[in-house]
Amino acid sequence: MRQRNKPWADDFLKDNDQLVIPNAMDHKGKWQSVFKNDYPIHVEIGTGKGQFLAGMAKQHPDINFIGIEVAKSIIVSAAEKVMDSEVENLLLLNEDAADLREMFAENEIETIYLNFSDPWPKSRHEKRRLTYHTFLEQYKEVLDTKGKVIFKTDNRGLFEYSLVSFNEFGMKLEEVSLDLHAMDDPLNVMTEYEEKFAAKGQVIYRSRASF
Amino acid sequence: MRQRNKPWADDFLKDNDQLVIPNAMDHKGKWQSVFKNDYPIHVEIGTGKGQFLAGMAKQHPDINFIGIEVAKSIIVSAAEKVMDSEVENLLLLNEDAADLREMFAENEIETIYLNFSDPWPKSRHEKRRLTYHTFLEQYKEVLDTKGKVIFKTDNRGLFEYSLVSFNEFGMKLEEVSLDLHAMDDPLNVMTEYEEKFAAKGQVIYRSRASF
Ligand SMILES: C[S@@+](CC[C@H](N)C(=O)[O-])C[C@H]1O[C@@H](n2cnc3c(N)ncnc32)[C@H](O)[C@@H]1O
Ligand SMILES: C[S@@+](CC[C@H](N)C(=O)[O-])C[C@H]1O[C@@H](n2cnc3c(N)ncnc32)[C@H](O)[C@@H]1O
Repeated sequence: MRQRNKPWADDFLKDNDQLVIPNAMDHKGKWQSVFKNDYPIHVEIGTGKGQFLAGMAKQHPDINFIGIEVAKSIIVSAAEKVMDSEVENLLLLNEDAADLREMFAENEIETIYLNFSDPWPKSRHEKRRLTYHTFLEQYKEVLDTKGKVIFKTDNRGLFEYSLVSFNEFGMKLEEVSLDLHAMDDPLNVMTEYEEKFAAKGQVIYRSRASF
Repeated sequence: MRQRNKPWADDFLKDNDQLVIPNAMDHKGKWQSVFKNDYPIHVEIGTGKGQFLAGMAKQHPDINFIGIEVAKSIIVSAAEKVMDSEVENLLLLNEDAADLREMFAENEIETIYLNFSDPWPKSRHEKRRLTYHTFLEQYKEVLDTKGKVIFKTDNRGLFEYSLVSFNEFGMKLEEVSLDLHAMDDPLNVMTEYEEKFAAKGQVIYRSRASF
């Protein structure tokens, strides 16, 4: 994702600390009290500019959504999108998913979304892929026992790798779609990348798996 | 596959019982002695007109291949193809794969190939799919402990189903390819269906899994 230089980003984030929550670690195990309700918590990792989560938050007012995005210049765009969409059930964290278990307690999350995660095609970068086993370990810890990982991508290599990785980790594959848009799922909310790639005629893959 | 009426098929098969072996059950546990060597045994289920196995048998003279094809009118074509290709390490069985464990002893097979198996898209026909769990149980029994199931298809629905089915059965996915022909595997031997669908620009899927 193109990262523009935004020197005012720090000030922006400071002014909007009710939406982009600083010191996420302080709220570990207590996210429902931040939302002031007891709805289940769904987390997207690598939220980008926030289109997916803003759409999901509208579609599911009885779910609390949290978007994690490591790039400061990008999470600013996500915050602007969330403000425009006027949803209440959505928070953002400017954090690295590698620290997931510092931010969430065991069983605190119902669903994790991975959308068009960076593919890291070189084998020497395998550890950075969000479906590498060290990430799966963290997902397993913070997800509740029925919790699901829902993964969408256009990247064939990453999807092939991820199916093998899920299987190797002992995860249960509940759904594999090798052409999501051929299915016409009326509840599917498109991400920015999904719109872009689908417009080019690329196939979109999706899997749903649990531990 | 189109089945022409071949009234002479019975006579043809009787005359060629060194290639299309009758009473396969009699050889259960003793296939290497039929081949008169101790090479590993690879079995294709639903051999069709035999192009894949004839090519494989040429490529791998130190493997014994057995093709199982339930349709009499089709196995006749396979037999003609094998005779033309003059390979010695290839036998055919005019049998139903549902009887696999009657034909092979435990651990007798090293690899099973499923190529462009009939998709049976309706849920009520799920039991007929060659990757339904009752078939997987038989494959597990006749394959040796490191034995593999290698599956190729152009059929998206069947491939999606099969990945979920392999995973659910506890199989280990060793490879998933979502566009086999993009990989340019020099050892890939094309089947009749594979040639036909690839020529139309269809994607070919392949998986390799073990128990
Ligand atoms: C290719 S973009 C996809 C954005 C969006 N999900 C979509 O589908 O349009 C991947 C995003 O993930 C973010 N990202 C990558 N690794 C991350 C990590 N370890 N923790 C949090 N965000 C990460 C990147 O900064 C980038 O914004
Ligand atoms: C779609 S054709 C594919 C032929 C060939 N493998 C190819 O890729 O070109 C499927 C073949 O499997 C055979 N077949 C289907 N079910 C079978 C079974 N239970 N046992 C043996 N053969 C079967 C059919 O008769 C048919 O010839």
